[in-house]
Amino acid sequence: MDYKDWVHGELKGLSLAHGFRYTPRQEIEGRLARLRAGMEKEGMDAFLVVQKMDYYYLSGTTQDGLLFVPLDGKPLLMVKREAERARVESPLDDIVRMKSVRDLPSMIQDHGAKVPKTMGIELDVLPVNEYFRYQSMFPGVKFVDASPVIRNIRKIKSPFEIELIKGAGDIGKRVYTEAKGFLKQGMTEIEFGGLMEASAKKHGSEGLIRVRSLNYEAYSWHVLSGITGGIVSQSDSPMGGLGLSPAFPVGASHKVMEANEPILVDFGTCYQGYQADETRMFSIGPMKDKFIHAFNACREIHDAVLAETRPGADCEALFRMTLGLGEKLGYADSYLGPPGLQCRFIGHGIGLELNEFPFIAQGQTYPLEEGMTFAVEPKIVFPGEGSVGIENTVVVTKDGCEILTTLEQDVLEV
Amino acid sequence: MDYKDWVHGELKGLSLAHGFRYTPRQEIEGRLARLRAGMEKEGMDAFLVVQKMDYYYLSGTTQDGLLFVPLDGKPLLMVKREAERARVESPLDDIVRMKSVRDLPSMIQDHGAKVPKTMGIELDVLPVNEYFRYQSMFPGVKFVDASPVIRNIRKIKSPFEIELIKGAGDIGKRVYTEAKGFLKQGMTEIEFGGLMEASAKKHGSEGLIRVRSLNYEAYSWHVLSGITGGIVSQSDSPMGGLGLSPAFPVGASHKVMEANEPILVDFGTCYQGYQADETRMFSIGPMKDKFIHAFNACREIHDAVLAETRPGADCEALFRMTLGLGEKLGYADSYLGPPGLQCRFIGHGIGLELNEFPFIAQGQTYPLEEGMTFAVEPKIVFPGEGSVGIENTVVVTKDGCEILTTLEQDVLEV
Repeated sequence: MDYKDWVHGELKGLSLAHGFRYTPRQEIEGRLARLRAGMEKEGMDAFLVVQKMDYYYLSGTTQDGLLFVPLDGKPLLMVKREAERARVESPLDDIVRMKSVRDLPSMIQDHGAKVPKTMGIELDVLPVNEYFRYQSMFPGVKFVDASPVIRNIRKIKSPFEIELIKGAGDIGKRVYTEAKGFLKQGMTEIEFGGLMEASAKKHGSEGLIRVRSLNYEAYSWHVLSGITGGIVSQSDSPMGGLGLSPAFPVGASHKVMEANEPILVDFGTCYQGYQADETRMFSIGPMKDKFIHAFNACREIHDAVLAETRPGADCEALFRMTLGLGEKLGYADSYLGPPGLQCRFIGHGIGLELNEFPFIAQGQTYPLEEGMTFAVEPKIVFPGEGSVGIENTVVVTKDGCEILTTLEQDVLEV
Repeated sequence: MDYKDWVHGELKGLSLAHGFRYTPRQEIEGRLARLRAGMEKEGMDAFLVVQKMDYYYLSGTTQDGLLFVPLDGKPLLMVKREAERARVESPLDDIVRMKSVRDLPSMIQDHGAKVPKTMGIELDVLPVNEYFRYQSMFPGVKFVDASPVIRNIRKIKSPFEIELIKGAGDIGKRVYTEAKGFLKQGMTEIEFGGLMEASAKKHGSEGLIRVRSLNYEAYSWHVLSGITGGIVSQSDSPMGGLGLSPAFPVGASHKVMEANEPILVDFGTCYQGYQADETRMFSIGPMKDKFIHAFNACREIHDAVLAETRPGADCEALFRMTLGLGEKLGYADSYLGPPGLQCRFIGHGIGLELNEFPFIAQGQTYPLEEGMTFAVEPKIVFPGEGSVGIENTVVVTKDGCEILTTLEQDVLEV
């Protein structure tokens, strides 16, 4: 059977029958219009989009390639390998196969686009060697950082995107509910985390938790029980856990979970590329009073943040408000980590990636806007003993916020 | 409890009791000696190591930071967050906390190192904005690409590293064996892949399959059954599968697995940071003759590669030999993908990352060397019908090779 014929005859039907949600043309057009407004403001004639989630956002496909967006004229998607599949997935009109990156200038010319004077490109993630290569291909063209423009657009989510984040939250609800059924005394942290992963995948979670960074790695299986909850590690979070090895010293370990320990589970899900992040406490039998009190403090802080979440609220002010509350509740030395290692954020934007704008953090002096989505996660850490916390993903609405991770908020005690 | 006291009193014992394997001092010293020989040859006075697996290889810790290696003098590990834990994990003598990357020049000076004239840094992965920042911190210093030097050293594995890759292979053996027990007709691909992941984690697999690239993403759950095995996608591999959405259009999907279909499973495992890669065929009842014949052809090609694998064998010649054999066996139009989309490699180096040297591929005209480890994976694709293949991870020995993924090679029929 000819492969191209098969793709155009069968692939879309097969994909839709198995749960695919394609990005509507109207959605892509709206994003491109907002992008162009940002490009014009920053003086870019064109944007060469190189990062996978950026070009997915603007094209609807993740087929490996490059997206050229001129300020005037149609975007050109150049696909390195499977251009036919990209044509099925993307509503863009101009999709071609790129046999070699060397052909980039001639492909842009063939597309009828002018060679730009100033070309945007994502300098926050583009490797230097690739940058040098593009520079040599386009002599005389000035390259500027387009990452602030695209990240600024991506931070406001459309109703379509919010629905998908809610879909991720719904998967999380099913996973945590099933997990309450299979958590057993004597299980290791990693065994429990692995079963939660299996549950999430069965319900459509995509497994990769994408981040925008060279070295920052994200994963779902944070299961920290008792003593391991008091361990800090490489990640910029209140606690990191023991992990499985010096090469992966974070998250679930081979430690056996015992009765009455606080079991903190911070488990992200991903639906159609969009993530939700969520933390709940589990316990086998009741947790000790110390942890119950600290957990209630986390809930109080969490609720206080949500009560202040609305368009116009300043991100740094929200963060600082929680520091004051943490202190007032008696957790000055354990809120967000042990002394000297306390992290400086209480929330992070979330969408296609885990580290989007806004950051509810020190130094982030900008207001919340309607359509922003973020995870808020107060946590309290006791070295050598354990940690507690709660986390939900929310969307900023016209006059407040809505929780997109709608699982019950209490300790999940078995 | 004071966190620092706890770390130095308890963390190492807890880690060792839960399976951690620390990199021995002698191993690190040998790596640094080989690195310095490479740096000297390339005219570098120092190497600022920025990429996580590179500094793990040279320090034994993945705590987030930067590693400065002067040509003469001791390395300096600067840790952004948890320097105490890094001290437990790394045999390096000089480990300090770095409050801000801005302090880098003064920290190097305090370490007693000269400001280098020529500084190596990994330009293949370093983002442009960070490069500009380092340039502004070290005016007059010439930055050169150190990635060829470090990748060249990392391609030859020590006995310690080979043992860990074999450990990953042993986890794979347990996972595939358990999978034969839980594969059932009516299960979806992703449900099966998720259960395999859970099994792998329980046995110590680390879940993240690391690659060295901006956009290339790796994951374990390639489960392609019947029709989905005939689908090409973003990854540079013979087939990609349907996947779960346009945002993740590769690997296992919600398709239900049926009797007599070829079920191709390409599942990577990771132990103590080191990966093994392995592909086997599953089937529920016997596969149709067409697929059995094609699978036997893959085994013949696989065995032919291994028969020629020894120090001195040319990588491209090995690849081309398989093209001739594929054609002779009647699979010119289906070996390594459908016409026009056939991929141009049959093997890839593997270790801390999935895309290390050597590549058994077109254009890779260099010889195999003792201590190299790579995965060899002949595959045959029939669009609209399915695909078959086999894959093992091997180490090049003094006069041949040894398979590190020692699971049975036959179809796993249930």
